[in-house]
Amino acid sequence: MKLLLIQGANMEYLGRRQPELYGTTSAKELDAILRRRARELDVELDILYTNTEGEAVSAIYRADRANIDGILFNPAGFLHAGHSLRDCLRSINAPAIEIHMTNIEKRGYGSVTSEAAVGMIAGFGVDSYLLALEAMTARLRKVAGG
Amino acid sequence: MKLLLIQGANMEYLGRRQPELYGTTSAKELDAILRRRARELDVELDILYTNTEGEAVSAIYRADRANIDGILFNPAGFLHAGHSLRDCLRSINAPAIEIHMTNIEKRGYGSVTSEAAVGMIAGFGVDSYLLALEAMTARLRKVAGG
Amino acid sequence: MKLLLIQGANMEYLGRRQPELYGTTSAKELDAILRRRARELDVELDILYTNTEGEAVSAIYRADRANIDGILFNPAGFLHAGHSLRDCLRSINAPAIEIHMTNIEKRGYGSVTSEAAVGMIAGFGVDSYLLALEAMTARLRKVAGG
Amino acid sequence: MKLLLIQGANMEYLGRRQPELYGTTSAKELDAILRRRARELDVELDILYTNTEGEAVSAIYRADRANIDGILFNPAGFLHAGHSLRDCLRSINAPAIEIHMTNIEKRGYGSVTSEAAVGMIAGFGVDSYLLALEAMTARLRKVAGG
Amino acid sequence: MKLLLIQGANMEYLGRRQPELYGTTSAKELDAILRRRARELDVELDILYTNTEGEAVSAIYRADRANIDGILFNPAGFLHAGHSLRDCLRSINAPAIEIHMTNIEKRGYGSVTSEAAVGMIAGFGVDSYLLALEAMTARLRKVAGG
Amino acid sequence: MKLLLIQGANMEYLGRRQPELYGTTSAKELDAILRRRARELDVELDILYTNTEGEAVSAIYRADRANIDGILFNPAGFLHAGHSLRDCLRSINAPAIEIHMTNIEKRGYGSVTSEAAVGMIAGFGVDSYLLALEAMTARLRKVAGG
Amino acid sequence: MKLLLIQGANMEYLGRRQPELYGTTSAKELDAILRRRARELDVELDILYTNTEGEAVSAIYRADRANIDGILFNPAGFLHAGHSLRDCLRSINAPAIEIHMTNIEKRGYGSVTSEAAVGMIAGFGVDSYLLALEAMTARLRKVAGG
Amino acid sequence: MKLLLIQGANMEYLGRRQPELYGTTSAKELDAILRRRARELDVELDILYTNTEGEAVSAIYRADRANIDGILFNPAGFLHAGHSLRDCLRSINAPAIEIHMTNIEKRGYGSVTSEAAVGMIAGFGVDSYLLALEAMTARLRKVAGG
Amino acid sequence: MKLLLIQGANMEYLGRRQPELYGTTSAKELDAILRRRARELDVELDILYTNTEGEAVSAIYRADRANIDGILFNPAGFLHAGHSLRDCLRSINAPAIEIHMTNIEKRGYGSVTSEAAVGMIAGFGVDSYLLALEAMTARLRKVAGG
Amino acid sequence: MKLLLIQGANMEYLGRRQPELYGTTSAKELDAILRRRARELDVELDILYTNTEGEAVSAIYRADRANIDGILFNPAGFLHAGHSLRDCLRSINAPAIEIHMTNIEKRGYGSVTSEAAVGMIAGFGVDSYLLALEAMTARLRKVAGG
Amino acid sequence: MKLLLIQGANMEYLGRRQPELYGTTSAKELDAILRRRARELDVELDILYTNTEGEAVSAIYRADRANIDGILFNPAGFLHAGHSLRDCLRSINAPAIEIHMTNIEKRGYGSVTSEAAVGMIAGFGVDSYLLALEAMTARLRKVAGG
Amino acid sequence: MKLLLIQGANMEYLGRRQPELYGTTSAKELDAILRRRARELDVELDILYTNTEGEAVSAIYRADRANIDGILFNPAGFLHAGHSLRDCLRSINAPAIEIHMTNIEKRGYGSVTSEAAVGMIAGFGVDSYLLALEAMTARLRKVAGG
Repeated sequence: MKLLLIQGANMEYLGRRQPELYGTTSAKELDAILRRRARELDVELDILYTNTEGEAVSAIYRADRANIDGILFNPAGFLHAGHSLRDCLRSINAPAIEIHMTNIEKRGYGSVTSEAAVGMIAGFGVDSYLLALEAMTARLRKVAGG
Repeated sequence: MKLLLIQGANMEYLGRRQPELYGTTSAKELDAILRRRARELDVELDILYTNTEGEAVSAIYRADRANIDGILFNPAGFLHAGHSLRDCLRSINAPAIEIHMTNIEKRGYGSVTSEAAVGMIAGFGVDSYLLALEAMTARLRKVAGG
Repeated sequence: MKLLLIQGANMEYLGRRQPELYGTTSAKELDAILRRRARELDVELDILYTNTEGEAVSAIYRADRANIDGILFNPAGFLHAGHSLRDCLRSINAPAIEIHMTNIEKRGYGSVTSEAAVGMIAGFGVDSYLLALEAMTARLRKVAGG
Repeated sequence: MKLLLIQGANMEYLGRRQPELYGTTSAKELDAILRRRARELDVELDILYTNTEGEAVSAIYRADRANIDGILFNPAGFLHAGHSLRDCLRSINAPAIEIHMTNIEKRGYGSVTSEAAVGMIAGFGVDSYLLALEAMTARLRKVAGG
Repeated sequence: MKLLLIQGANMEYLGRRQPELYGTTSAKELDAILRRRARELDVELDILYTNTEGEAVSAIYRADRANIDGILFNPAGFLHAGHSLRDCLRSINAPAIEIHMTNIEKRGYGSVTSEAAVGMIAGFGVDSYLLALEAMTARLRKVAGG
Repeated sequence: MKLLLIQGANMEYLGRRQPELYGTTSAKELDAILRRRARELDVELDILYTNTEGEAVSAIYRADRANIDGILFNPAGFLHAGHSLRDCLRSINAPAIEIHMTNIEKRGYGSVTSEAAVGMIAGFGVDSYLLALEAMTARLRKVAGG
Repeated sequence: MKLLLIQGANMEYLGRRQPELYGTTSAKELDAILRRRARELDVELDILYTNTEGEAVSAIYRADRANIDGILFNPAGFLHAGHSLRDCLRSINAPAIEIHMTNIEKRGYGSVTSEAAVGMIAGFGVDSYLLALEAMTARLRKVAGG
Repeated sequence: MKLLLIQGANMEYLGRRQPELYGTTSAKELDAILRRRARELDVELDILYTNTEGEAVSAIYRADRANIDGILFNPAGFLHAGHSLRDCLRSINAPAIEIHMTNIEKRGYGSVTSEAAVGMIAGFGVDSYLLALEAMTARLRKVAGG
Repeated sequence: MKLLLIQGANMEYLGRRQPELYGTTSAKELDAILRRRARELDVELDILYTNTEGEAVSAIYRADRANIDGILFNPAGFLHAGHSLRDCLRSINAPAIEIHMTNIEKRGYGSVTSEAAVGMIAGFGVDSYLLALEAMTARLRKVAGG
Repeated sequence: MKLLLIQGANMEYLGRRQPELYGTTSAKELDAILRRRARELDVELDILYTNTEGEAVSAIYRADRANIDGILFNPAGFLHAGHSLRDCLRSINAPAIEIHMTNIEKRGYGSVTSEAAVGMIAGFGVDSYLLALEAMTARLRKVAGG
Repeated sequence: MKLLLIQGANMEYLGRRQPELYGTTSAKELDAILRRRARELDVELDILYTNTEGEAVSAIYRADRANIDGILFNPAGFLHAGHSLRDCLRSINAPAIEIHMTNIEKRGYGSVTSEAAVGMIAGFGVDSYLLALEAMTARLRKVAGG
Repeated sequence: MKLLLIQGANMEYLGRRQPELYGTTSAKELDAILRRRARELDVELDILYTNTEGEAVSAIYRADRANIDGILFNPAGFLHAGHSLRDCLRSINAPAIEIHMTNIEKRGYGSVTSEAAVGMIAGFGVDSYLLALEAMTARLRKVAGG
């Protein structure tokens, strides 16, 4: 099972950026946590950080051509105007799960990408990623097993 | 660790109600799944189904007086006008996690209760509940352990 | 043929409440008129007055479990925020007809429950109920006869 | 008792037009059904089909000058911008009942003409017309008898 | 002179709930303060706490049938969607005064119930209730004396 | 100097239609008053009553081809959706003055045709027409004399 | 017959201010034109230029106390936020006519003061004042003569 | 292959009307250009100019009964309120292409009729018609050939 | 204890202005009532009537410099656009209470000044002032006593 | 004559992406069709696919510096937020034509780039490109020949 | 070179008013700083503090008649409803620069006066004034020198 | 002191692009002017032109890691949808000043990036940059000196 995690604009600064909202875990540390958990779940996990929406879109098409099984993504800076990303996620076969470290609804934000996601997990900081990884794995195994 | 799960208006008809959206697992079956998982996690779980928002509010205050550790809730029919529920959740000490079986953002709905939730999990059907149970347990253990 | 009539919030005060809008027929008198007409149409008619939306929802699920054939309802006080009632009516098999004593469109009101009704009759005072009773009977006989 | 039925824009194509919404009864067949019922109710019924709002307006003034007792009308294509028709109906003495074959509220449409109608019947297909005919007759007899 | 005070959803938690907004006086203490002042003013005061709007509505109709002289009410959790309560207050003879402990206008909230109140007092904490009690008494004595 | 007066939808019923708003002068009497005043001002005045916007448009183009000097018009029923009339008035050489018997701004109405009028006179009943006739004559004489 | 003309904010700069919109007639010249016409109509005309809305309000109350017969006013700079002026005009007995040199509707502006005016004349430059003077005189003479 | 071109309100004045927007080609000249091109494409082309939406609707139904293959239409003055035309185009079998001489999107206008058109061509003046003629022919030949 | 009462635009006409809304007590009589009650409460009360928002602002700064203890104000005509007054009240140390003779919420009005007021009393006519006087006195004594 | 075609975000997946909307022709096949048609029209055609708006902007400036004659562009994923692209197209000399494979108006979408396009062709699938190529060629030849 | 600085409503309280936003420099101190800098730049600077918009308007017209070279203004309390001030600034020949001590855009405020300003400087506290003084001087010298 | 200037989308075409708005100074010339002034102020100035928002974001993080002292930025094409840029500027320590050559408020545009800027300078063409350079230098020296 192969998954791709897209970390949208500004996620590279995790740990330094508004720690009262996003915590002090750095991007590097988060990656290590996720790769470890992926190994436990027997999942191959690619991670892409990008500040440019078009790069996320291109990477997702490359992954889809390579038969990726699922997409995890934190739209971050693409939250408000990521229409290309949304249309891209609608265009591929693999399901996508949207991740937010904070509860964006609580903060009064809607997400333009949500229209293209099977589900959303928001508000659990670093745990949001772990929950999404489990949710995706469970979903794919259910389909495969179904 | 004691948790309360509030199942909002119309959840009693789970399994019979729009199964193309909400699946065929009945309310009874869902309860069994959740209680089993709660036992595994060593958590005491109360479940309340109600079609009346005021009953949910009263139950939450009773639970808060009895020192509940966390609230899980699917607002369901209270999604659009559950302002009392929202104010209630703001008034207690225990954290609350909002659960939706479908991805409400994808369906274009906002939630008035989200302002009072630490996080939201939406779109994973029955798994939304299991993920929320785990997220709450992890959160409370972290705080307790911290 | 069994029908359930739901009289929403404030309908208990019919005849005393803003008679320039709703007339002077009391709730009791209206019930007698409707039961008489139901007998003529050979229809079993249950009538529930409630000021609490959740009670209407619970009653409809009970009726649906008991194989009700159709629902007549005047949302009354649930007109603006009766989302639970709407979702409930969407969840059952029996068709529902929405009734208003005044022409709510003329008064500039929309109804949140209308999304779940096969039809609406508004503006004819007590006659709105009689017309709805006939419309439901005709509809059910047509389906049964079809 | 003399009544005028106005069939607004596009009603001439009834039976051929979106039959999944409007059924397969043709305009001609509908007329026959209505005239028969009118005779039973001892009512004189004129029917006008027009695609031009101004013609409906002119016909209503002619009818009002000839002391029409009531107007039945399906605004159809005039639903969204029939302000002239609305002002016309406000200007005459005879009451008007608005008819829709589908439940327009359910479809999310408001009606600009509703401000000038005593009542509205929507969602019962051909039966919407029959119910309106009965509602008007009952109303006029009540007034006359009162 | 008999008055009824309705304490809307979440008021039962007064004193524990967001004390930075609502103070530390408990519901019980508030009741004692109000009953004492009522006695001084020679007024009979009933107090109802409820989290369910429908119960408030039913209680008001019961009181109106028993010839209540005036209603005091803090809509609290019914502030945003209390349309049934509003319609109920419009339907009775007794005047109603709306009470808020905080200045809701200042916090950017409108009240749907205000359409049915003769006046509003907002922003004075516990004193809001005392001022309302005096305003109602003065008003009723003026009418009686007029 | 040749002028055309367009009387929009429902103006034919002047004098019978909502006399509390529009007075009791009939269309016929108004015409006589205007023709008399036109003669005094040495102006040739054509008057067209129509309930159909397209007829007004066609008449204005005919008049423009015949070198009309000015247009007076009461959009009446075309107030809210008279976009064709507005575009027509923009397309011709002659100036147009918009007339209303009531103060439409006071009643909260905007006019879609106003974008194509040099001026507007509203709220003076029959006098609105006389003032418009004088304003147009003055304007044309000024231009001619200029 | 005594009239008061209020010239709102910025009117003092008439003739120098955006002459492509407002022409080259100066405030002084306009006053002379109006006083001459007032004498012909046998009307006493006071004119007040003010850039401060409160001064206009105070002047109107003074005039009302002195039994003014009518108010003519060009709100000018008070067009968008002249709520005090509007409430003032509603509070007095004398009727008011609103004047604009340009067709404000055509320019897409609504007027907050229009709710308090019997009529509006807009778009005729200096002639707007003369037409308003005549309209007011005619109206007052009709009432007096009636 | 038979096509019908509907020229909406105000198109009769083409060439004289706002030539800076619509050019100087007259309606007559445009017709000649289109008929010539239709002959080259071996297409039978009917052209109807009308200022009345209802006439366009009636003509389209007549054409549909006569098995027209496609509709070309410039809504022109029906752009903003042509709901009857839109509903008519939805009711027939033949496809419709919407034509605008100017780029209406660029001018900030939406079109109510677009919901019923397979495609839109806007902004090319007289060429908009020629491109639409070719697009329709290609489409119909593809379907026929498919 | 020194208080300042600001009476906003149009309050000078109290008693003559829309008495069905504001009663027949004149400004002079109101002042006498308030001064008497102030003496009873041992409070020094200054009263300023002004139609010009800037004068209210200047007076409040003068009072603040002279160490006023509290401000009572009826924004009246400054209700909709009194942003300067609001900013002024935010800039001083003394608390302010907003007064309305009618229930402005009931009439559908919001108040821009409310953001700067500790509380609001609305709907009790002349009594609104007396209640505000008492509320302010109680508040200041509580703080002083605290 | 040199033209540049910009294929916006997600167009690289043409043929695989939502084929019920966009058909099964791949990007590669579309390019071949367009280049062939360009050769027939004696036009040099460059094609750029990009998922990043900034790359489209840079390419257009490069082309403008190289004296491109016209731009064809399908904004695709840049439809909703392509403000940079719009401003870029406004900044160059060459005209631009906007292309959509579906009728975006019918789908309820507006385009932010349309403000910078001379015309738009929408709804004809692959033919939209061919029609745009012809429209541009005709336009440029007309200007050159003019 | 002569300049006029308008300090809008509430600026008189600079230094005492919300110092966390506006700093502790008093109006008097600010004036001294500005006059000193004006002398250095060889500019004559008049400063007017006013809480009444109409006084600002009158002062600007007086200055314009006296051939002022430029206007600097901080609308302050006139930010939201200063339409008269805006129209005044549009009516004169001298350019105007708008000054804000805070970044009003950041605080979510728009300015109605900005339509009449050549430029805006916001967010630099006292330095906003110094930068504006320099910007105006540079601009005027450039024009004079050009 | 080290500063970074970000020139957003389309700024590379300065001097060629809409010179009536942006003047004829080219990007190259502007750079020379700014570098010269930076040297005078003893400031190290890096300048980045980019049409891709993500590149601006990445560059700002690189600069922040290298301890940049301040950011100057003209969002240009990122004005309307530059949410990533805004979030980036919120995430770093260095202050940012927003620059516009035109008065965007006057043109009716808001800026999404302004929420993250300490101040804004708009409307002075090339001088906007010089003023921002000075404002930033003054601010940083004040903080350093403070």
